[in-house]
Amino acid sequence: MVLEAIRYKPHSLQILNQLKLPHQIEYDDVTGSEDGWNAIKDMRTRGAPAIAIVAALSLAVELHVGVLSDKAPRDVGAYIVEKLDYLVTSRPTAVNLADAARKLKKIVQSAAKPDGNDGAAVVKAYCDAAAQMLISDVSDNQAIGKYGAEWIEKLAPGEQVSVLTHCNTGSLATAGYGTALGVIRSMHSNGSLKRAICTETRPYNQGSRLTAFELVHDSIPATLITDSMASALLQLKGPSERIVAIVVGADRVAANGDTANKIGTYQLAITAKHHGVKFLVAAPRTTIDLQTKCGADITIEERPGKEMTMMKGPRFDGAKLDVNQVEVVSIAAEGIDVWNPAFDVTPAALIDGIITELGVVEKGENGDFDLTFAIEAHNESVKPSSVGGLYAA
Amino acid sequence: MVLEAIRYKPHSLQILNQLKLPHQIEYDDVTGSEDGWNAIKDMRTRGAPAIAIVAALSLAVELHVGVLSDKAPRDVGAYIVEKLDYLVTSRPTAVNLADAARKLKKIVQSAAKPDGNDGAAVVKAYCDAAAQMLISDVSDNQAIGKYGAEWIEKLAPGEQVSVLTHCNTGSLATAGYGTALGVIRSMHSNGSLKRAICTETRPYNQGSRLTAFELVHDSIPATLITDSMASALLQLKGPSERIVAIVVGADRVAANGDTANKIGTYQLAITAKHHGVKFLVAAPRTTIDLQTKCGADITIEERPGKEMTMMKGPRFDGAKLDVNQVEVVSIAAEGIDVWNPAFDVTPAALIDGIITELGVVEKGENGDFDLTFAIEAHNESVKPSSVGGLYAA
Repeated sequence: MVLEAIRYKPHSLQILNQLKLPHQIEYDDVTGSEDGWNAIKDMRTRGAPAIAIVAALSLAVELHVGVLSDKAPRDVGAYIVEKLDYLVTSRPTAVNLADAARKLKKIVQSAAKPDGNDGAAVVKAYCDAAAQMLISDVSDNQAIGKYGAEWIEKLAPGEQVSVLTHCNTGSLATAGYGTALGVIRSMHSNGSLKRAICTETRPYNQGSRLTAFELVHDSIPATLITDSMASALLQLKGPSERIVAIVVGADRVAANGDTANKIGTYQLAITAKHHGVKFLVAAPRTTIDLQTKCGADITIEERPGKEMTMMKGPRFDGAKLDVNQVEVVSIAAEGIDVWNPAFDVTPAALIDGIITELGVVEKGENGDFDLTFAIEAHNESVKPSSVGGLYAA
Repeated sequence: MVLEAIRYKPHSLQILNQLKLPHQIEYDDVTGSEDGWNAIKDMRTRGAPAIAIVAALSLAVELHVGVLSDKAPRDVGAYIVEKLDYLVTSRPTAVNLADAARKLKKIVQSAAKPDGNDGAAVVKAYCDAAAQMLISDVSDNQAIGKYGAEWIEKLAPGEQVSVLTHCNTGSLATAGYGTALGVIRSMHSNGSLKRAICTETRPYNQGSRLTAFELVHDSIPATLITDSMASALLQLKGPSERIVAIVVGADRVAANGDTANKIGTYQLAITAKHHGVKFLVAAPRTTIDLQTKCGADITIEERPGKEMTMMKGPRFDGAKLDVNQVEVVSIAAEGIDVWNPAFDVTPAALIDGIITELGVVEKGENGDFDLTFAIEAHNESVKPSSVGGLYAA
């Protein structure tokens, strides 16, 4: 079964506690906006779209209790707006969370206008919109998975092929299913996947901790490598394992197709080109930022060196893991200077296709991507922007 | 001061205990062959040439005590041969240790022939040859450093430039000074080095633990990156930092120049080519194996997955390191399959030069390296082969 990081029914919200992964699977109940605020603050939920959706749904659960339904529409609207402002303070740097709150406020304010609606109708308008965010994000990812899988399957019709991916772009980074990992899930479900290869993704190891966990969870044949092994893998195992593509997610796609994504992505694109393997970016249209002309306009955040020189994990005593005893150990010489960029930019020239929920965009005859169609996605009211994730891990 | 991993005087041998690095600097006395055997067995000393030299010198220290000097030459010879055989059992897979023992035995057997030599003369012949191994290895490395530095300095005469390196090829991997790191040391000493960049070198982190330690020790301006950051570094910092070359060591250079070295080397060579940066291999002539025609003839050892999924280091309690409390933590999801090749092969096509103790070999007009000159090195009696290190970390 496909891993679910967010479980929502009208009166109940549960999130998979990501701080316990990959060694413990624990779902936490989120009973209201204060719980939601804490879950985001504590990093128990992560990933740009997931944060916005958990915030919105935590308030929906609170409103479903029904205490507001007999209040005046204006009071209900004011209450929701106040709670949304509060939820945004859980992660002030998350552009998409603020963006989602802004869009939800508009819906609430529109429903609260004195045109005959009662308080219950305002609550319903909010809850429907919040629920729709989850539904849309998962269905967009499923569409990305479907289009990406079909595109890759055409490279070797009727054959099982392998795909390499980077970082975590699965259920644990999105509202569910995943983008690049959604493509892999879709291929697996179609029977066309021979093997998924995931990189460790230093320095924060999202690949070895989260992607590897999702692949094991879903019983998808998979192999973990260090980031430094990708080229040797393509050289030594590329033909026998039929590795035909590298598929990654994106934190921001510029108007010309240049793509900011987790550090190490650019290096994978170079080795894909060197070995004649396709390089694909999988992302919802909301990740395409038409305001950003090209990669040079994207500022790369540099993170503390400690994230590279220290590693955290449950203690291994030589025979077994103690999942309740988490330690931090030093893995570098003291006093060394560190350069730790969180992201890099892959030029459009190295990208063969951008997989969106509407299909795979390839370059036109002029050699350029035309991504202007993405503008509609930004105008669709309940889709939080997925741009702006250039901060957290 | 340049870090010394082996300190030898005729009656005294000390080795830097590499198990305590990078967090503690402890020299252990080695008083005889049994001590030497244990130091190698316990991995307190490492690196292909260093192991052979420590073995040879540990026996020299024992012989210097002088108890054998009044014995018959044949008995002295037999004693030394027996001890050399014993020392080889400390690391039976180390081809170069066996190779050095074989060469030393020849010298001893020749000195022990009844041609007037007494026992003391046999001891002296052995001790001189053992001491010469250390002297030759260090002076070869200094020559490699000198030639490599001059070659790189010609790329930008009069300017300070930066160089990227991989794994550990310094005093901690050789008998002293280092090969690729020797080139960096030599540039620093010439005043031509702007900055050294060292990769973490997953999965065993020889870069972040050992190379970073040596660079900090020698006060060489240096920056640590993860393996996945090399391409982003060349893209973003290449021009401002004047990164003109990537210099690596070698575990085996085939007759055509194809080079087996620590996993991740091949990927660095690809990105060097992509960014127009020179890619150099630094290795003594004994690393050139004319019996190996090309890279395809080299079998790549695969290591246990645990080396990738577990990390060892001193515990960090949030405020400080406790160097006496070393822990192992898990950094990957349980149940994931792992591919862990220890080495990869960089094709000669991606290599601009091979730096040896006789100079830098470039390709001829036919586009091929001519490495046949290396045959002499293998015939020089006291140089242990540095080929065969395709086993340990």
